[in-house]
Amino acid sequence: MIFGSLNLRFKTMKLLQGLLLSVMTVPVYAVQWQSLPETAPIPADNLQSDAKITLGKALFFDPRLSSTGTISCNSCHNVMLGGEDNRPVSVGIEGQKGGRSAPTVWNSAFLSVQFWDGRAATLEVQAQGPVTNPIEMGMKDWDVTMQRLKSIPGYAALFQSAFGDKMSMTVENTAKAIASYERTLITPNAPYDRYVQGDKKALSPQQVKGMKTFAKIGCTTCHVGANFSGPNLPIGTGWFMKFPTIAGSTYDKKYRLMEDLGRYDVTQKIADKHVWRVPTLRNIVLTAPYFHNGAVNSLTEAVRVMAKTQLNKALSHEEVEDIVAFLKGLTGEFPEQTMPRLPGMTGISVID
Amino acid sequence: MIFGSLNLRFKTMKLLQGLLLSVMTVPVYAVQWQSLPETAPIPADNLQSDAKITLGKALFFDPRLSSTGTISCNSCHNVMLGGEDNRPVSVGIEGQKGGRSAPTVWNSAFLSVQFWDGRAATLEVQAQGPVTNPIEMGMKDWDVTMQRLKSIPGYAALFQSAFGDKMSMTVENTAKAIASYERTLITPNAPYDRYVQGDKKALSPQQVKGMKTFAKIGCTTCHVGANFSGPNLPIGTGWFMKFPTIAGSTYDKKYRLMEDLGRYDVTQKIADKHVWRVPTLRNIVLTAPYFHNGAVNSLTEAVRVMAKTQLNKALSHEEVEDIVAFLKGLTGEFPEQTMPRLPGMTGISVID
Repeated sequence: MIFGSLNLRFKTMKLLQGLLLSVMTVPVYAVQWQSLPETAPIPADNLQSDAKITLGKALFFDPRLSSTGTISCNSCHNVMLGGEDNRPVSVGIEGQKGGRSAPTVWNSAFLSVQFWDGRAATLEVQAQGPVTNPIEMGMKDWDVTMQRLKSIPGYAALFQSAFGDKMSMTVENTAKAIASYERTLITPNAPYDRYVQGDKKALSPQQVKGMKTFAKIGCTTCHVGANFSGPNLPIGTGWFMKFPTIAGSTYDKKYRLMEDLGRYDVTQKIADKHVWRVPTLRNIVLTAPYFHNGAVNSLTEAVRVMAKTQLNKALSHEEVEDIVAFLKGLTGEFPEQTMPRLPGMTGISVID
Repeated sequence: MIFGSLNLRFKTMKLLQGLLLSVMTVPVYAVQWQSLPETAPIPADNLQSDAKITLGKALFFDPRLSSTGTISCNSCHNVMLGGEDNRPVSVGIEGQKGGRSAPTVWNSAFLSVQFWDGRAATLEVQAQGPVTNPIEMGMKDWDVTMQRLKSIPGYAALFQSAFGDKMSMTVENTAKAIASYERTLITPNAPYDRYVQGDKKALSPQQVKGMKTFAKIGCTTCHVGANFSGPNLPIGTGWFMKFPTIAGSTYDKKYRLMEDLGRYDVTQKIADKHVWRVPTLRNIVLTAPYFHNGAVNSLTEAVRVMAKTQLNKALSHEEVEDIVAFLKGLTGEFPEQTMPRLPGMTGISVID
């Protein structure tokens, strides 16, 4: 029940923070380390199928979902890299820069809300955002987008195969297919996973030391669960935290931490100022630069900033190195994928 | 010997054009129809190997070869589409537009020169162009590019595997690996190929009619050979034609055909004004819009323009439709490919 309501949950976490800060000693939690499941939660109204995943993969890689024909989902959420673009903020059509750093698409199916500010409850809702965002993929609206998809002959067959009939070329089904593909993007069997499953040699002694420090100082308060992004919550619930929780450090200015109001822009609630969805730490070494604004280039510095702004800790060099070593153990196995063949036009271009 | 020298060859073709125009009847050539080989010519100094192809594929898809980390070779030469971007001209870093339409990378290994103006003799030389082009991938120079590749740990192992030692991370080997990958991009077994190999049902009656018209009116003067881009010439020779050969039609202005001087910009020779490398017609229905400037959106119109500007023919509606039907028979089989895993950084970004 505590996590049944976002407000209740958030208040509970605020209470917890206050408690932690007031006693200034952090209890060692009995952390329940979990390995990553090989399958993601699947919503009842969008069951997985090979045909849907095939369609979704084509859509995910198709730059014709952008007005200029230059930006696909994969442009910013590059599955051949760590699931994003290794840039501070992404670049959309006509060289325009977004305001926040692209989160990784790998294991995003384990998040209970989507976007940095949690404004989408599901991957299906998330997938509908960037396409019509004027600085991302820049399509005028979804009517125009679906008209374009309908003008590409091969898509009709892919939709029919995935959803059963020719009338199935809708924005909802487009989003469902993309979400279905994204739910296959899971990286199991990281050294950490093998370690918690019993292979005690999967992590080095330094990594194990880092793992203990990670828990002891309180990183696991937020970065819990199999995905290190919060407990198993019903889809749409969200697991949020204020960042910086402890404002006033030199990092605030150095990394512009107070500029973006985060979830407040969604809810307009004072309590949501600088509140963010807790991101996954899986494959974190592959997804530099860090934080919602990509302002911190190195993981080492990101660990220092987190310890200071969230836990009021100034870590020793050794503690930082140990935690970074542990985080390197969160890089999983990326399943081999075939490239989609994008349905071709026949002798005409859909791009003006 | 006729084709041994570019000038000689070009003069010969000019002579041929003059002859054709003066008699105003076009002889029916005894066209030697050729199917596409399953392997491309391989240069003696860059033999194929699995390791080289693996490295080349990673490089081809890696957007970190651009200054902003947003543009890879595949951005403009999209192998999941028809090998290019279906745009009039491509978009490089910061939304900048190039001056010419991206040629397809599929079957580019069969061209004896690269780029629209033939300024690169080989795929190896071609691959070195876009990376440091300020409006394409925008790297400052190749020293900076190689420094960046060296800073990505996984590339050292891929180069070592491909070229034998750690000192092998050079611009020359980078280009060799990309070229090796590109030499695997071949689309055999088009309906046309199956037809000329004896399967008389592979093309429809209309397509066969179009094929005959295509030869009869003289398209095969230039679009000959297995790749419809010229005869089998030694790499670097080049097979060029003036476009428009017959200037003065309304198309010149409508499609801005006289603006770009083509090969003249490379050689500064008057005879090379508006001279272009003859492009392949393979997979042509997938690569709209058409011509060096991408000014013609539909293949139907492109056929009309070609007939008028190159052969001084005003084709009937039926002839155009027949030729287009034939050209649709040039779409081959695209080999299934796995996605490359791009070597990851460890906790730091190489993009500023």
